Amino acid sequence: MANNIAKKVSWSGEGTPLLNGAEERRYSGQPSGGSMFHIGRMSTVDLEEESIMPEEDPMRRRPSEIPHNEKLLSLKYESLDYDNLENQLFLEEERRMSPMSFRCLEICRWIICGLIGVLTGSIAFFIDVAVENLAGLKYDVIKECILIHTAHKSLTKQPDIDRFTEAGGLSISLILWAVLNSAFVMLGAFIVAFIEPIAAGSGIPQIKCYLNGVKIPRVVRLKTLVVKVCGVIFSVVGGLAVGKEGPMIHSGAVVAAGVSQGRSTSLKKDFKIFEYFRRDTEKRDFVSAGAAAGVSAAFGAPVDEKETFRYDAASAAGNAKSLYQCFGRFILFFLTGGVLFSLEEGASFWNQMLTWRIFFASMISTFTLNSFLSIYKRKPGELSSPGLINFGTFVSEHVQYSVFEFPLFICMGAIGGMLGAVFNTLNYWLTIFRIRYVHRRCLQVMEAMLVAAVTATVSFTMIYFSTDCQPLKKESPEEYPLQLFCADGEYNAMATAFFNTPEKSVSSLFHSPPGTYNPQTLGLFTLTYFFLACWTYGLTVSAGVFIPSLLIGAAWGRLFGILLPFVFPIKNFPWADPGKYALMGAAAQLGGIVRMTLSLTVILVEATGSVTYGLPIMLVLMTAKIVGDYFIEGLYDVHIRLQSVPFLHSEAPATSHWLTAREVMSSPVTCFNRVEKVGTIVDVLSATSTNHNGFPVIMQAGTSDEPGKLCGLILRSQLIVLLKHKVFVERVRSRLCRRRLQLKDFRDAYPRFPPIQSIHVSQDERECMMDLTEFMNPTPYTVPEETSLPRVFKLFRALGLRHLVVVDDQNRVMGLVTRKDLARYHLGKHGLEELDLTHP
Amino acid sequence: MANNIAKKVSWSGEGTPLLNGAEERRYSGQPSGGSMFHIGRMSTVDLEEESIMPEEDPMRRRPSEIPHNEKLLSLKYESLDYDNLENQLFLEEERRMSPMSFRCLEICRWIICGLIGVLTGSIAFFIDVAVENLAGLKYDVIKECILIHTAHKSLTKQPDIDRFTEAGGLSISLILWAVLNSAFVMLGAFIVAFIEPIAAGSGIPQIKCYLNGVKIPRVVRLKTLVVKVCGVIFSVVGGLAVGKEGPMIHSGAVVAAGVSQGRSTSLKKDFKIFEYFRRDTEKRDFVSAGAAAGVSAAFGAPVDEKETFRYDAASAAGNAKSLYQCFGRFILFFLTGGVLFSLEEGASFWNQMLTWRIFFASMISTFTLNSFLSIYKRKPGELSSPGLINFGTFVSEHVQYSVFEFPLFICMGAIGGMLGAVFNTLNYWLTIFRIRYVHRRCLQVMEAMLVAAVTATVSFTMIYFSTDCQPLKKESPEEYPLQLFCADGEYNAMATAFFNTPEKSVSSLFHSPPGTYNPQTLGLFTLTYFFLACWTYGLTVSAGVFIPSLLIGAAWGRLFGILLPFVFPIKNFPWADPGKYALMGAAAQLGGIVRMTLSLTVILVEATGSVTYGLPIMLVLMTAKIVGDYFIEGLYDVHIRLQSVPFLHSEAPATSHWLTAREVMSSPVTCFNRVEKVGTIVDVLSATSTNHNGFPVIMQAGTSDEPGKLCGLILRSQLIVLLKHKVFVERVRSRLCRRRLQLKDFRDAYPRFPPIQSIHVSQDERECMMDLTEFMNPTPYTVPEETSLPRVFKLFRALGLRHLVVVDDQNRVMGLVTRKDLARYHLGKHGLEELDLTHP
Repeated sequence: MANNIAKKVSWSGEGTPLLNGAEERRYSGQPSGGSMFHIGRMSTVDLEEESIMPEEDPMRRRPSEIPHNEKLLSLKYESLDYDNLENQLFLEEERRMSPMSFRCLEICRWIICGLIGVLTGSIAFFIDVAVENLAGLKYDVIKECILIHTAHKSLTKQPDIDRFTEAGGLSISLILWAVLNSAFVMLGAFIVAFIEPIAAGSGIPQIKCYLNGVKIPRVVRLKTLVVKVCGVIFSVVGGLAVGKEGPMIHSGAVVAAGVSQGRSTSLKKDFKIFEYFRRDTEKRDFVSAGAAAGVSAAFGAPVDEKETFRYDAASAAGNAKSLYQCFGRFILFFLTGGVLFSLEEGASFWNQMLTWRIFFASMISTFTLNSFLSIYKRKPGELSSPGLINFGTFVSEHVQYSVFEFPLFICMGAIGGMLGAVFNTLNYWLTIFRIRYVHRRCLQVMEAMLVAAVTATVSFTMIYFSTDCQPLKKESPEEYPLQLFCADGEYNAMATAFFNTPEKSVSSLFHSPPGTYNPQTLGLFTLTYFFLACWTYGLTVSAGVFIPSLLIGAAWGRLFGILLPFVFPIKNFPWADPGKYALMGAAAQLGGIVRMTLSLTVILVEATGSVTYGLPIMLVLMTAKIVGDYFIEGLYDVHIRLQSVPFLHSEAPATSHWLTAREVMSSPVTCFNRVEKVGTIVDVLSATSTNHNGFPVIMQAGTSDEPGKLCGLILRSQLIVLLKHKVFVERVRSRLCRRRLQLKDFRDAYPRFPPIQSIHVSQDERECMMDLTEFMNPTPYTVPEETSLPRVFKLFRALGLRHLVVVDDQNRVMGLVTRKDLARYHLGKHGLEELDLTHP
Repeated sequence: MANNIAKKVSWSGEGTPLLNGAEERRYSGQPSGGSMFHIGRMSTVDLEEESIMPEEDPMRRRPSEIPHNEKLLSLKYESLDYDNLENQLFLEEERRMSPMSFRCLEICRWIICGLIGVLTGSIAFFIDVAVENLAGLKYDVIKECILIHTAHKSLTKQPDIDRFTEAGGLSISLILWAVLNSAFVMLGAFIVAFIEPIAAGSGIPQIKCYLNGVKIPRVVRLKTLVVKVCGVIFSVVGGLAVGKEGPMIHSGAVVAAGVSQGRSTSLKKDFKIFEYFRRDTEKRDFVSAGAAAGVSAAFGAPVDEKETFRYDAASAAGNAKSLYQCFGRFILFFLTGGVLFSLEEGASFWNQMLTWRIFFASMISTFTLNSFLSIYKRKPGELSSPGLINFGTFVSEHVQYSVFEFPLFICMGAIGGMLGAVFNTLNYWLTIFRIRYVHRRCLQVMEAMLVAAVTATVSFTMIYFSTDCQPLKKESPEEYPLQLFCADGEYNAMATAFFNTPEKSVSSLFHSPPGTYNPQTLGLFTLTYFFLACWTYGLTVSAGVFIPSLLIGAAWGRLFGILLPFVFPIKNFPWADPGKYALMGAAAQLGGIVRMTLSLTVILVEATGSVTYGLPIMLVLMTAKIVGDYFIEGLYDVHIRLQSVPFLHSEAPATSHWLTAREVMSSPVTCFNRVEKVGTIVDVLSATSTNHNGFPVIMQAGTSDEPGKLCGLILRSQLIVLLKHKVFVERVRSRLCRRRLQLKDFRDAYPRFPPIQSIHVSQDERECMMDLTEFMNPTPYTVPEETSLPRVFKLFRALGLRHLVVVDDQNRVMGLVTRKDLARYHLGKHGLEELDLTHP
C-alpha cells in the first residue's frame, strides 16, 4: 500500500518489523467503497490518528512494495489549532480577568522568552564544549596510537603527529581514524534510530511544519531534545559533513515548547505555572521565539579563535567595552536574522509585541552562550567572546567590488542555483531509496557508520594524493596547519580543508590570502565534499546542512575567483581577491540548496561582519533561488513533500479559482447533537476507520437524511476529557459530579490527550447523555458551499484554522474543510494538480 | 453638533463658511429615534458618505459651538476593502487566466515597484534641489539688502554678512528675514489651505490609516502630491521647525497609488495598463511599497557635505567603488527600516514576495535619488553621493560605552518619554484649540505666517543674547560657522544651531567635539525649539516631525552629557563624549514623540552608520515608549484620534470578551432581494440619512418582519455602476443592452464612483428589476450572533474586511459589523470604553 511508505521517511526514520496485525484489524471495519466514498476519494473527515493510536503503532507498519509516490498527502499528521477555542468556559475565564491580569500575562510572556533564551544559550554552550572536548579526546587517542606504532616500528625516527611519511603509519592511522569516527557516528545514529527517530536530520523542516500548523508527533518533546543534542555532538565529532545550526534551531524550539508550558509531561513534573499558555496559539508564539533563539545561539559562538584573542587583548586592556561593541553588531542580526527566520518560516500574522519578544529571546540566548564560553575558556566575568558566528570580518581592502562584477555575481548565483538543484535532486532520489530499502534501524545505523568511514577514507585518500603544499606563513589564517607529506615549513592545503571543523574551513576559504589553495585542491574538494554532504543529509543522525553548503560554495567560489583572471586576462585585474568570491559562492550554494533568501541575506551579511556585501549577497541569493526553483524546490521543502506533510503555503495556487468549497470539503460529516448519548460518542471516537478529530454539533437531528443546523464545533480532545471526567447529564442531576469541569481540566490534559481506548465506559454509562453546550465552540467559522478555494484558503491560513465548517444557505452542515483538503492542491508543471490522500 | 467638529481637523484643515442649508435638508428626512435606534446608537449600517456626497459639501459645515470630544468616532470615513470581491465576473476572469498570465502579473508588480522607486526618488531629488536653490536665493536677497543697507549707513566699514554688529543692520535683517520666511510659509500654507487641505501635516497618520484600511478622502490623489511637495519645500525654506521625511513617505504612497493604477483620474489619462490592479487589495500592497520607498528617499539624501566630499575624493581616485560600498550599507537599512516601517504601520499579513518588492522599490528609490544628485552636483555618472541620511558616522573612539552607562541610557529614555508626552499633550491641546477656533482658511494661513515670524524672531533674539562664542577650529564640523557678535576667529554656537538646516544641526550636535556648545546654549535652544516644534506641528503646512524631534533630543542629550561629569565627579570619567548622549537623546525624544520603536531602531542605527549603538538605542526607545505610553499615546495616534478615525489596532481590547457580535453589530440592516426593483435601490442609495455602503442580498423577503436568508453581499459602488449602465432585467430581455457588463466597467469606475445623484433614472426605469446575482459577492464571510468581540475582531482584521454579516442559526441576516463597530471599543483607564458614533 502506497500510504505506508509515507511513514518510512528519512527524518522519522521509523520502519521496522512486519507485524501488521494491528493494522489489519483496524481496517476490518471499514466499508469497501460505495456510499462512503465521495468525489472519488475517501469520505473521511479530518482523518487524523496520532493522538488516539498507541504510540508504538507507527512502528508496526510493513514496508511497502510499490514505489514511493510523492503525489500523496499523508493523513497521519494532526493539525494544530491556532484559533482559540472560545467555548463558554474560556469566555467565562476571560471575563473574570481584569486588565491587570492581562498585564501580568504579558510580563509572564517576557519572562518565558528570557528563560527560553537562557536555556537555549546553555544548550549551545554544552554542545560547543562537548564537541571541543570529544574531538580533542579523539585526536589524542589517534596521536597516542600512532606514537606507539611508529615508536614500535621505527625507533630511529622521531615520531611526528603531523607527518605520516610511513605508509604503515598512514594505514594504521587511517583505520584508527575511520574506526573512531564510525564509532562516534554509530553512537549518534543508534540513539537517533532507536530512541527518537524524529531527532534525525536538521530539524528545520519539522519546525517549519510546526509553525505552519502541522503537528509532527513528538517533535517538541524533552526526549527529542536530549537525543538531538547528543546526536549532533556525536555527528560533528564523528567527522561527518554536517553543521549544528539546524539542530540548534530545533533545540530552541523544544526548549520554548517546554518552558512555556510550565511543566514536563515526560518528567511528570508540573510547576503549576504558565497554565494560561497551555494551548496551541500561545505555544506557537513561544516556539517561534525559541527557533529564533536557536538561530542566534547557532551563529552566536565564536569560531575564529584569533578573533577571540584579539578581543581578549582589548578586554585585558582594562575595559569590558569589546563585548558591548559586539553587542551592537548583534542587534541587527537578531532583529533581522532570527526574527526574519521565524517570520519567513512560520508566522503569518505580524504582531509587533511578539516580534520584540522573539528579539529578546535571541539576545538573551547569545548573551548566555557567550557568558558561559567566557567563563569556560578563561577567567569568568571577562565576557570577551565576540559572539556571532563571524567567519571573520572582511578587512577593508577586500571590501571592494565594482559594478562590472555584478554579472559575475549573477553568474555565480546561477551556478549556485543549479548546483543546489543537483544537490536537492540527488538527495531526493537518495531519500526515496532510503524510504524504500533502508527502513530497518540497524540498516540505518550501519549506513551512518558507512558514511563516516567513507568520509574518513575519502579525506585521507584525497590528502594522500594531494601535492598542494603551501608555505607556512606566520600570519597564516590556519589555526592548525598540517604538514603531512609536505616539506618542513610547508603544510598540506587539502588536509587543512578536510581536517578542520567546517566552520574553520569556511573562514579559511574566505580569508586566506590569494594563492593559499591551488585550483586542483579546490576542485577536488568541492566535488568530494558535495557528494559527501549530499549523502550525509538524510542519514539517521542529527545534522544540519547550513555549514556544509557554505563550505561547498566557498570552495567552488574560491575556485571561480582563482580561475577568473585566466578567463578574463585583463592586466591589473581589479577583483583578484578570491576570498570575496568564496563568500559569494557560499551564499549562492546555500541559497541554491535551502532557498531562504530573506533571512539568509541578513545572516550572511552579519556573519561576515560587513554590510558592504549586502547588495551582492542579495543579488546572488535571489538568482540562486530563481534558478533553483526552476528545477526543484528547496531541500527542506523536498523533505516536507517526501514526508507527505499537508503543508500550507502562504497563498492558494494561482489557478485554483475553479474549485469551490463544495469540491474541496470532506463529506458527509459525522455530527453530534447538542445533547448526545454517551454510547454514540464513544462509538464514533472508537471507530478506527473514521478517525475524526472535529465534530460539528448540530441543533436537531431532523430526519435521518437531512443534515442538521450547525450550532457548534467540538474536538475529539474535548470529548475525551469529558468522557474521562464522566460529565453526564444524569450524574450532574444526581449530584455525582462533585464539581463543574473547568478549563484547567482541559489544560492539564493538553497536549497529550489519552486515547479513547484507555477510557472505560460501562454499559450503563453508555445510556447516559452528555450535554456539549458548555464545552463546544459555539461560533465556528463557516463558509458557504460556493466559496472559491482561494477564499477558503485565505480564511483558513490567516486565522490558522483546523476545521472550517461548510454550510448551506440554511446553515446546515454540508461538509468540513481541513488542512489536507487545502494542501492537496498545488500548481504543477501542467496546471493545478491534486494529491491523493493516503490512509494512515 | 459635536460631529461636525470632527471635520475641522488640523490635517484636512477644512472648516469654513456657515452655510448649512444642505445639511439641514439632508437631516430633514431622518426619523427622530424610536424603532430605528438600536442599543442606544444610530441604526445606520456602515454610514459612510464621502463617495456619494458632492465634494464641496464637507466645506459647508458650520463650526461647532460645543467643545471637541475625542470620545467620538466619525462616520465620514469610508473603509477600504482588502477582501477580494469574488463575484461571478471576477471568478470567470480568474478562471480564464492561465498560469502564464499569473506570472505576467507578478512581473508587472515588480515593474510597478521599480517605477514607484524611480518616481519617488525623483521627487526627493526635486525637493532637495528646490530647497537648496530657494534657500540660497533667500540668503542672497538678505545679503544683498544688508549690503545695500550697511553700505548706505556706514560706508567706512566693510559690510560682512556674517557679522551684524550694527543694531540697525540687525533689526533690518531681522525684519527682512522674518518677512521672507513668512512669505514662503504663506505660500506653503496658502496652497495647502486653499487647494488641498489633506496635504497638511506630516502625512504619516494618513498613510497609517490608509494601510489600516480607512479611506481618507483625497489622500492619494495627484493634487495632494503636488501640494504636498510644493508645501514642504516652502515650509523648509520658510525656516519652520519641520522635516521632510513625513511628506516624503506620503509622496511615495501617492506615487504608488497612482502608478499602480496605470492612469490618472485627475489628468483624465488612462494608459490602459495595470487594469488588474484596480482594486483596494492590490493598491494597498503598492502603497506600502511606496511608503517604504519614501522612507528610503527621505533618509537617502546626503546631508553631510563633508561625507560627500570624502566619497568624492575616493571616487576621483579612479573607481566607482564608493557608491557600491555605500550600497552595502543601504541594504540592511532598506530591508529593515523601510520594510519594517511598512509592516509596523500597516500590513498585518506577512507576505514574502511583497516584502521583496517593497525592498526593491526602496532600493531603486535611493539609487535614483543619488544618481540624480550626483548628476546635479557634479559630473554625471560619477555616482558618488553616499546616500543614506547618515548624520555622520561615529568614529571608533566614540563607539565606546560601558555597561555602567545603561542606567543612564534608561534614564534618558524615561526623560525622552516624558518630554514626548509633554510634547504630545501640548500639541493635543493646541490641535483642539485649532479645531475650535482656527478653522477659517485665512486664519490658518495667518497662523502659519505668525509661526514663521515668531520662529525667525525667537532665533534672532536668542542669538542676540547668546554669548556662546566658540573658537573656530580648522577641523570644525560646522559647515557655515556664523561669527555674528563674536570676536574674529570665533563663531556663535547658538547661531549655528539655529541657522543651519535641522539635519546639519543634528549632525553637528552628534559629532562636534566636547566643548563646542556650552550648557546654557543647549538648554535655551532645547526649550525654544521644543515649543516652536510643538506649535509648528499641526499647522496648515506640509511638514514632518522626525527631524525636529531628533534636534530637540540631540540638544538636551548633549546637555545631559555635558552635565554628567558634574553630577558624577569621577576622575577620568570614561564616558565624556557628549555626542553619544546627543544620539541617545535624539532617539529618546523621537521615540517619546512618535513611538515607533521597531523601525526607528533600525533607521537610527543605520542613519548613524554604527550598529554598535543598536542595543542602547533599542533600550532607550523601549524605555521612551513605555514611559510615554503611560501618559498619552504617540503623536500620530493622537492626531488619528482627534480625527475620530475608526482605526483598528492589531488586537481587540484585552477585556472585550464580554461583548458579542449581537451587541456590536448594527441592526436592522437594509437588504436587497436577489432580483430587486430599480426604484427601491435608487431610493435606498439616495437616502441621505442611512448612507449604507454594503447591502446583504437576501434570498426571499418573507413577511416584512422576518429577516431573509443571506445569499450575498453587494456594495454601493457596484450598484451605482449597474444603475449607470442600466443593467435591468427588462432591457436585457429586450436586447437593449448591447453587451454584458464586465469587470472592466467596474475597474474603470474605480476608485471614484459617481454619486447616486448624478445618475438619472426615469420613472419607467424605476419599475424595472435588477438581477444582482452575477455581481454580488455570493460568499460573504459571516459570524453567528454569539461570536465574541475578539473573535469578530480577529476575523475582521486578519482578512481586512469591510462588512461582516451577522447571521442567526437559520442563516438569516441579523446585523452587519463594520469597522466603526469594532473601532468604537478601546481600553481606557477604567476598563473598556465605548466611543460614540457621530453623524457625518
